[in-house]
Amino acid sequence: MATLGDIGLSAAINLFTAFIFLLAFAVLRLQPFNDRVYFPKWYLKGLRSSPSRSGAFVRRFVNLDFRSYLRFLNWMPAALKMPEPELIDHAGLDSAVYLRIYLIGLKIFVPIALLAWAVLVPVNWTNDALKIRDITKNGTSSDIDKLSISNVPDGSHRLWTHIVMAYVFTFWTCYVLYKEYAKVASMRLQFLASEKRRPDQFTVLVRNVPPDPDESVSENVEHFFLVNHPDHYLTHQVVYNANRLEKLVKKKKKMMNWLTYYNNKLARDDSKRPMMKTGCLGLCGSRVDAIDHYASEIDKLSKDIAEERERVASDPKSIMPAAFVSFKTRWGAAVCAQTQQSRNPTVWLTEWAPEPRDVYWANLAIPYVSLSVRRLIMGVAFFFLTFFFMIPIAFVQSLANIEGIEKKAPFLKGLIELKFIKAFVVGFLPGIALKLFLIFLPTILMMMSKFEGFGSLSSLERRAASRYYLFNFVNVFLGSIITGSALDQLNSFINQSANKIPETIGVAVPLKATFFITYIMVDGWAGIAGEILMLKPLIIYHLKNFFLVKTEKDREEAMDPGSLGFNTGEPRIQLYFLLGLVYAVMTPILLPFIIVFFGFAYLVFRHQIINVYNQDYESGAAFWPDVHFRIIIALITSQVALMGLLTTKNSAQATPVLLALPILTIWFFKFCKGRFESAFVKYPLQEAMMKDTLERAREPHLNLKGYLQNAYIHPIFKESEDEDDESVSEKWETESTLVPTKRQSRRNTPLPSKVSGGSSPSIPEVIEERQ
Amino acid sequence: MATLGDIGLSAAINLFTAFIFLLAFAVLRLQPFNDRVYFPKWYLKGLRSSPSRSGAFVRRFVNLDFRSYLRFLNWMPAALKMPEPELIDHAGLDSAVYLRIYLIGLKIFVPIALLAWAVLVPVNWTNDALKIRDITKNGTSSDIDKLSISNVPDGSHRLWTHIVMAYVFTFWTCYVLYKEYAKVASMRLQFLASEKRRPDQFTVLVRNVPPDPDESVSENVEHFFLVNHPDHYLTHQVVYNANRLEKLVKKKKKMMNWLTYYNNKLARDDSKRPMMKTGCLGLCGSRVDAIDHYASEIDKLSKDIAEERERVASDPKSIMPAAFVSFKTRWGAAVCAQTQQSRNPTVWLTEWAPEPRDVYWANLAIPYVSLSVRRLIMGVAFFFLTFFFMIPIAFVQSLANIEGIEKKAPFLKGLIELKFIKAFVVGFLPGIALKLFLIFLPTILMMMSKFEGFGSLSSLERRAASRYYLFNFVNVFLGSIITGSALDQLNSFINQSANKIPETIGVAVPLKATFFITYIMVDGWAGIAGEILMLKPLIIYHLKNFFLVKTEKDREEAMDPGSLGFNTGEPRIQLYFLLGLVYAVMTPILLPFIIVFFGFAYLVFRHQIINVYNQDYESGAAFWPDVHFRIIIALITSQVALMGLLTTKNSAQATPVLLALPILTIWFFKFCKGRFESAFVKYPLQEAMMKDTLERAREPHLNLKGYLQNAYIHPIFKESEDEDDESVSEKWETESTLVPTKRQSRRNTPLPSKVSGGSSPSIPEVIEERQ
Repeated sequence: MATLGDIGLSAAINLFTAFIFLLAFAVLRLQPFNDRVYFPKWYLKGLRSSPSRSGAFVRRFVNLDFRSYLRFLNWMPAALKMPEPELIDHAGLDSAVYLRIYLIGLKIFVPIALLAWAVLVPVNWTNDALKIRDITKNGTSSDIDKLSISNVPDGSHRLWTHIVMAYVFTFWTCYVLYKEYAKVASMRLQFLASEKRRPDQFTVLVRNVPPDPDESVSENVEHFFLVNHPDHYLTHQVVYNANRLEKLVKKKKKMMNWLTYYNNKLARDDSKRPMMKTGCLGLCGSRVDAIDHYASEIDKLSKDIAEERERVASDPKSIMPAAFVSFKTRWGAAVCAQTQQSRNPTVWLTEWAPEPRDVYWANLAIPYVSLSVRRLIMGVAFFFLTFFFMIPIAFVQSLANIEGIEKKAPFLKGLIELKFIKAFVVGFLPGIALKLFLIFLPTILMMMSKFEGFGSLSSLERRAASRYYLFNFVNVFLGSIITGSALDQLNSFINQSANKIPETIGVAVPLKATFFITYIMVDGWAGIAGEILMLKPLIIYHLKNFFLVKTEKDREEAMDPGSLGFNTGEPRIQLYFLLGLVYAVMTPILLPFIIVFFGFAYLVFRHQIINVYNQDYESGAAFWPDVHFRIIIALITSQVALMGLLTTKNSAQATPVLLALPILTIWFFKFCKGRFESAFVKYPLQEAMMKDTLERAREPHLNLKGYLQNAYIHPIFKESEDEDDESVSEKWETESTLVPTKRQSRRNTPLPSKVSGGSSPSIPEVIEERQ
Repeated sequence: MATLGDIGLSAAINLFTAFIFLLAFAVLRLQPFNDRVYFPKWYLKGLRSSPSRSGAFVRRFVNLDFRSYLRFLNWMPAALKMPEPELIDHAGLDSAVYLRIYLIGLKIFVPIALLAWAVLVPVNWTNDALKIRDITKNGTSSDIDKLSISNVPDGSHRLWTHIVMAYVFTFWTCYVLYKEYAKVASMRLQFLASEKRRPDQFTVLVRNVPPDPDESVSENVEHFFLVNHPDHYLTHQVVYNANRLEKLVKKKKKMMNWLTYYNNKLARDDSKRPMMKTGCLGLCGSRVDAIDHYASEIDKLSKDIAEERERVASDPKSIMPAAFVSFKTRWGAAVCAQTQQSRNPTVWLTEWAPEPRDVYWANLAIPYVSLSVRRLIMGVAFFFLTFFFMIPIAFVQSLANIEGIEKKAPFLKGLIELKFIKAFVVGFLPGIALKLFLIFLPTILMMMSKFEGFGSLSSLERRAASRYYLFNFVNVFLGSIITGSALDQLNSFINQSANKIPETIGVAVPLKATFFITYIMVDGWAGIAGEILMLKPLIIYHLKNFFLVKTEKDREEAMDPGSLGFNTGEPRIQLYFLLGLVYAVMTPILLPFIIVFFGFAYLVFRHQIINVYNQDYESGAAFWPDVHFRIIIALITSQVALMGLLTTKNSAQATPVLLALPILTIWFFKFCKGRFESAFVKYPLQEAMMKDTLERAREPHLNLKGYLQNAYIHPIFKESEDEDDESVSEKWETESTLVPTKRQSRRNTPLPSKVSGGSSPSIPEVIEERQ
């Protein structure tokens, strides 16, 4: 029951926090020694190199040009400057379309907010249902409640305004969604059409190759496709099970890091050679010379790796029953990816090959039955995770109380009785258990998706995102509205009659408006401002820089720019769509807060995408149907909640009128699905044929086989070749110059940064430069 | 609360009825003048001709061989004699697989019944919960209730037997379903593979051809496929809008019938020429000579038809934006049918062409948006039809009471007060309104499917079947259990808490056992016996035979053998699956009745399929996924009902144990779907390639283009050609000798019936004959 004043205060606090974050960001990013943290994308593209070595020593670390501090907000217009086509060129279609989600938020909610404030707020405000209730029941209502539908008396004819508005909002939302779907679909098709030649355009991933007693997997694949696609088959690559090799290489890398660390230590303090213990965590075991120790370990590992690579290459058991099959034309690949190959629909499964960098290699060999069982297990597990996650946490919390600990571990009693520790245990431990769980939740969901056996990073992320969305919907949205754990909700939902559920939700929604306003400000304003500050990468970079970096290459690798994180980011946005749509009719005062979120987040993420994030893959906006679907869910939720609320407001005759809305919305969803979805799932033959014909005309003597030969080699082979055997690596690189950017390959681009350390790169200049 | 005695009496009555039907059938079918009614299939195949003209006049109509009457049940073993592969050859895969549905019923329920009677019946019988209840509450329970789960006391540990049995039954059902799905899928693939060359193997139906300002539809199609399938495109046929032409031809046919009728009349009574009135129903208007009148009308119509045919052929507006595109190879057609052609997924829609005789021509031109809207409308309409169909009927019924009629139409008062009429109005009219609705329901559902725009008869029937099933499920099953109209149910379901719904159903199910036993006996025993008697076709045939038949051809056309009627038959079987599975655990006494139904119906329909029905199309058992899905639904319903019942029996701890069952069942369904469904939807390239290769080897100089040229001509063109211009028809027939049987073409097969009028044809003999 917060008043407008309370909300104002909270808004002030959050705005101040956001301001502090932005200020810190503005100062930190101007410092040359942070340059790699805040502009890693440009370094990766080879368009910017470390601050020049010349000049004063101090200048290399601290920016002394005070004028640049005055313009500390100029990243904002800079972020908006880059036009969309160039953004697609710069960061890929995934990122550009991801930004459109925020734009949709604005497109949907700005007109809705205007209309709601022009129509609904006056209608709500000029009633006195709450005043009467306050007097009769001796309660107090806040100003916010006076602006909401709660202020309209039961059975009032004014409620028809809300019903009409619900229709208007639904139609507007659907209109925007339709336009966007059409736009994104055409962007995707254009992107795919205008793309340069890429191996995945010609390649199909074949899974579940049936075992053959007489032929190896490779022969079997070759024969099958020579027979069934005689005019189109070109070549294929089998998939090796290199999981163990990958582990060894990772271990070696870690050892190398330690070696570097000790070498640096020795270089700094020449007097004594660094020593270490070999036991657990360096606490026990015999003391040895650290550098010698690691050097010998690395030697040993190198041998192991060589052996293992030998084994993988020669042992037929390390070949998985999957293969990347390449065709002579895009048409051939499109045909093979979309058709069923064999009588038995669980073998010779074909699908478009993901980009080489998008492949999730470990999952390529899972047979059909196992996949099916895994999905069942994960479905059940996710159900329990969503509805029963409070049980283990409550258990941990119950352990973490003072008496419990003293009982279980009496020897800790003295320690615990200390005032400071006691306060910590009582005040923080219970909360920390929950917080830790929520922090690790995306990781848990990602692991679940991996277990389910998806074959590409992009599909893994999409799956994890949809799970995260469901979790949020149940535990954050419904959980906050009905207050109580999801388990309680489940229980009360089961025990409630079907038409009471919308009522329960509908009645609770307006009451929770202030809570969600606060939530939006903390998570959506201050939280987004925290995103741009990038505190964690900043700290890690400087730690690595200090301890591990020797060469320019090390420095480059020290900075992990991260990526958009579709699996966490998108569900988060969806929560705002849900809140916005649900509250649009009931408590329109919430809308401006949501609009601020969408606008601010758009700015911040546009900046991040241009300057920081480096996508791991490019899926061509394949996630759009999911985004569309979830906004539709939000829309339907809002309609059901409104129906429920109106039922309690004694305007039962309104419910049938509203009933048409969800039906129309579901129909709209189906219509859009039929109309656009295939653009995200299939590849039209017409398109393929067009590109093939063009290519044949342009490059009649193209050696496609050579181009595709090594495109789908497990990255571990490339990496290790790259490290150990420069010539092999070179061979690969010359053969496949058009394989998507691999960082090292542009390591030494001579192009210097055109931009002085003071501001973000002037984008049009950079683009001209590249053209 | 019927006793075993009551059930026994009812069983006796129904068995007697069935016996009477069978006896009547046995007598009627032995009469030579009924031969065409009971063995039309053999006539259509040309394997049997009218009873020989020689011999005594009486013998041609009445069978005087009394020994044949003694063997009046010998149609039963005869029906079982034909082995399945020959049945497929004789009646098509659809019919053979349709019979397997009955077999599955036996496979599922015989072991379940044995187990239930061995385990559950003793467990139920040796309790005395009902006795105690009868004593304390002064009620009476029947013997049947004593055999059901109701007799087990609340909270008894014996209920675990039922839970274990529920698991056993579920696993057994799933096992049978899995085996059958696998079997049917392989039968289908084998059927498709072993088939002779058929036009639909090479042909793809293209819908929504986009309009082109410069090119006609035909040119547009040709160019598109020449560009996008250059190596495979062969030819195409556009689709004409011949709906008006069809109407004219039908009208002409009707006129011809009347002309024949009057001519016959004249022939019988030479003295006076038959006269008729031209006005409505022949009651008013001027009197004219009937034969002259019809002769001139037919002349006029013939001219109209010729004109209209001219118009359709020349007017570009009568060409619909759809076409049948044929390819050089099956591989090319399989590829085209399974892939997306154009950027815009709502134009150039491709799908496998149905068989020529399966095409539903009128629907081929509906554009995508219209289709989508039509589906929405029909969805809503079907919802209202299911839940509100009682409203108009109740309205009619309220009109049809005595007072109402007297008030509305006072002049009828005298008439109505007559005792006989009054009894009729009071006793029958209200019932008749409902009965009429139920009789017309399949027709209504079929019209709804047609409106939705499906392009083939088989898909129309499948759609109507699933709607009919839903209607039955809601109104017959749930309606009988919860007693009350679907509308009441809907209301109570909405107002009930979610976990109360299974309870309501679960508690009501055992109470309704006797009702359903009676239902099974009336509908499933006597009703099936009535099916074999074929009273309606018998009467119609003899009427036509008497009034209209002049030539042998007319006699052939007078008998409409009908077809399986998947849209009504399959939902009816599904009801028995539902009852069997729901009652298996609760009241196992129902199971024998169901087994008798499945066994008897299997016999009857096998006989009918061999001797009577003539399928309109052959879909290759494409309906199987639907059948499988509905049995799964029945299974889940049974599990939910048991869960509900057990909750009320104070064994709440059993519910979680049972909860796993529906989850596993749903998973099983998904697994089967992934494993087998594509066999019914797609056509594997491997298969296509194999057949192509074989064919190329066998007939290297095949003129495929000539073969496919006229395969997909609107039947009205063929028919009218056939009537008016024998040479054109012949041309067509020689060109496409392998197009599925067209009746007339075998009209005068010289093969005489090898079988004397006395008994059904000895099948192996016939088959040998044909080989």
